[in-house]
Amino acid sequence: MLAAAAEFGIKPEDFCDFSSNVNPLGPPPGLDEELKAHINEISRYPTPQARPLRSALSEWLGLPEEQLLIGNGANELIHLFFLWRRPRRVLIPCPAFSEYARAAKLAGAEVERFSLPLDASLDKNSVAGFLEGVELLVFCSPNNPTGFFYHGEVLREIIEEAGKKGVNVLLDESFLPLTGSDPADSLACAGYDNLWVVTSLTKLWALPGLRLGCLYGPRGEINSLSQNGDPWRVNALAQRAGLYCLAAEGYLKKSVELIEREREYLLARLQEIEGITVFPGEANFLLLRGEREGFTSADLFRKLASRGILIRDASNYPGLDHRYFRIAVLRREKNLRLLEELQNYFAGS
Amino acid sequence: MLAAAAEFGIKPEDFCDFSSNVNPLGPPPGLDEELKAHINEISRYPTPQARPLRSALSEWLGLPEEQLLIGNGANELIHLFFLWRRPRRVLIPCPAFSEYARAAKLAGAEVERFSLPLDASLDKNSVAGFLEGVELLVFCSPNNPTGFFYHGEVLREIIEEAGKKGVNVLLDESFLPLTGSDPADSLACAGYDNLWVVTSLTKLWALPGLRLGCLYGPRGEINSLSQNGDPWRVNALAQRAGLYCLAAEGYLKKSVELIEREREYLLARLQEIEGITVFPGEANFLLLRGEREGFTSADLFRKLASRGILIRDASNYPGLDHRYFRIAVLRREKNLRLLEELQNYFAGS
Repeated sequence: MLAAAAEFGIKPEDFCDFSSNVNPLGPPPGLDEELKAHINEISRYPTPQARPLRSALSEWLGLPEEQLLIGNGANELIHLFFLWRRPRRVLIPCPAFSEYARAAKLAGAEVERFSLPLDASLDKNSVAGFLEGVELLVFCSPNNPTGFFYHGEVLREIIEEAGKKGVNVLLDESFLPLTGSDPADSLACAGYDNLWVVTSLTKLWALPGLRLGCLYGPRGEINSLSQNGDPWRVNALAQRAGLYCLAAEGYLKKSVELIEREREYLLARLQEIEGITVFPGEANFLLLRGEREGFTSADLFRKLASRGILIRDASNYPGLDHRYFRIAVLRREKNLRLLEELQNYFAGS
Repeated sequence: MLAAAAEFGIKPEDFCDFSSNVNPLGPPPGLDEELKAHINEISRYPTPQARPLRSALSEWLGLPEEQLLIGNGANELIHLFFLWRRPRRVLIPCPAFSEYARAAKLAGAEVERFSLPLDASLDKNSVAGFLEGVELLVFCSPNNPTGFFYHGEVLREIIEEAGKKGVNVLLDESFLPLTGSDPADSLACAGYDNLWVVTSLTKLWALPGLRLGCLYGPRGEINSLSQNGDPWRVNALAQRAGLYCLAAEGYLKKSVELIEREREYLLARLQEIEGITVFPGEANFLLLRGEREGFTSADLFRKLASRGILIRDASNYPGLDHRYFRIAVLRREKNLRLLEELQNYFAGS
């Protein structure tokens, strides 16, 4: 966003930002005041291992504390996981969040890809054939950028199939809480001994500037990270924010209601625009494809950015091409603005 | 501190804290207000690679931007370095900061030790004999917990000797700026191609709750960490704080003056107390040894903690024993309080 702000001479805060995919409700009310009131905590060492927050999250997620590691965002934890475990050969679906492959590369891993069907269908056989010789399978559900939610059974089968072949699975559930799922729907609760689960609290609570995430690992595995890793990893303000957000009554329900209502509205309205294919994702964002000849998401990005609207050009996701872009589900007035701009763009030359 | 607070029923903020070793001046005036004024930045993604702060630090340190990585405290960067480089055999002096060995262990390294002379004398021969078969030498100057400052020449010889044997050196200069050294005194400026330097900004600017640090690496080495590592590693408030602290006029000079004056005062007064040996460190803390029969730093710790004063029981540093403890150099009124308590303790039974 900062690059776009500089290029188009628009202040970052004046952009209508459909490019990132954090909770559109913003942080829970009062969080600013909570952090201001505790600003002097920057002068004391943070609680090691973010223990009070870990304990509160453990209760919320229904997972044992000693199997949780709190970090500076899901992305830090994905990178930490790769550097720590050093899988030699990693299977990553495409399209998927680009950081999996970057983290794999930094850790010296070889990356194999398999294509996710863009009609949201998936069965264990789509994956099974690729598991040979692989040490780690990375999977995201709901997936970014497609928004496809692979519900329980198919993922269980994939994890079990991976387990039979000695393959670990790193499952990214960063968008799960925003679908309205119960925390107990997390596959972490199934207790597979080859399953690791990463969750973004940054996205859940709209704190991308503060960074907060959580890594779950099989019994006994997180201990060595907790015991020998950096104990002061999570700063005092992020810990404070996490505790506040967890306790914010009604906030998650309100977030989920907003997302569901606006996603369905956007889906219906976008389907009316000729020249756009909308993929029926179940997360707080939607993947779209421009169908007009000569369409490029790069051109659409520039046109909209110059008018103060940021979308995510998704052409650089392996498995996608110049026709794809992603939009976040935001509040109604912003969604209306985007819809109007898209209508004009696709009605135009 | 939180454990002591709970045990002794004293609020964390009411302790006279000689146990940690951050800048006794506290953060630069006005930082709280600066952070409060920018609290809404938690709602936007932080600038990737903390670029504006990296650029400002590059200018201050006189080091190329592309050789600097900004992180969540020196400790995060030490851990990241170990996990990323995976040295198989590591040479660590004793006594030294305990996190080096923890980071080495997490990364699966074998740790070799060599003893630092407690009279601050050191030459390359004390180290050279241990370098065989080692991939990494870790060194801290001024050293924690001794406070000994190994000035330029001896360190240069050690780094060059290591270089000849193909050994990388990770030099921890976290306490260097607080000695009043010019940033150009950093050995990073000497451009050795086997030298990595880590610096704590947390300690320099008294921000232990916020976490900020910097890693310098030889030309070409940091690139892959920057290009493939977590781009949002450093949260927006820490970036904001760093820029503010760097620009705080007169703050560093005032910090150094306070530390020098109070350290000399403490040194002189402590030497008058029978039963204490003081090691003449040059940092913002001092290592002490109780000489009375039956003395244990654990007992002293408990006595002082119950009276609202925290010291660092240094008995668990490899190379030290139950007689050693470390105190920070604080402001005069606090130092007087500690001196009085120590006088009473050592005059007593």
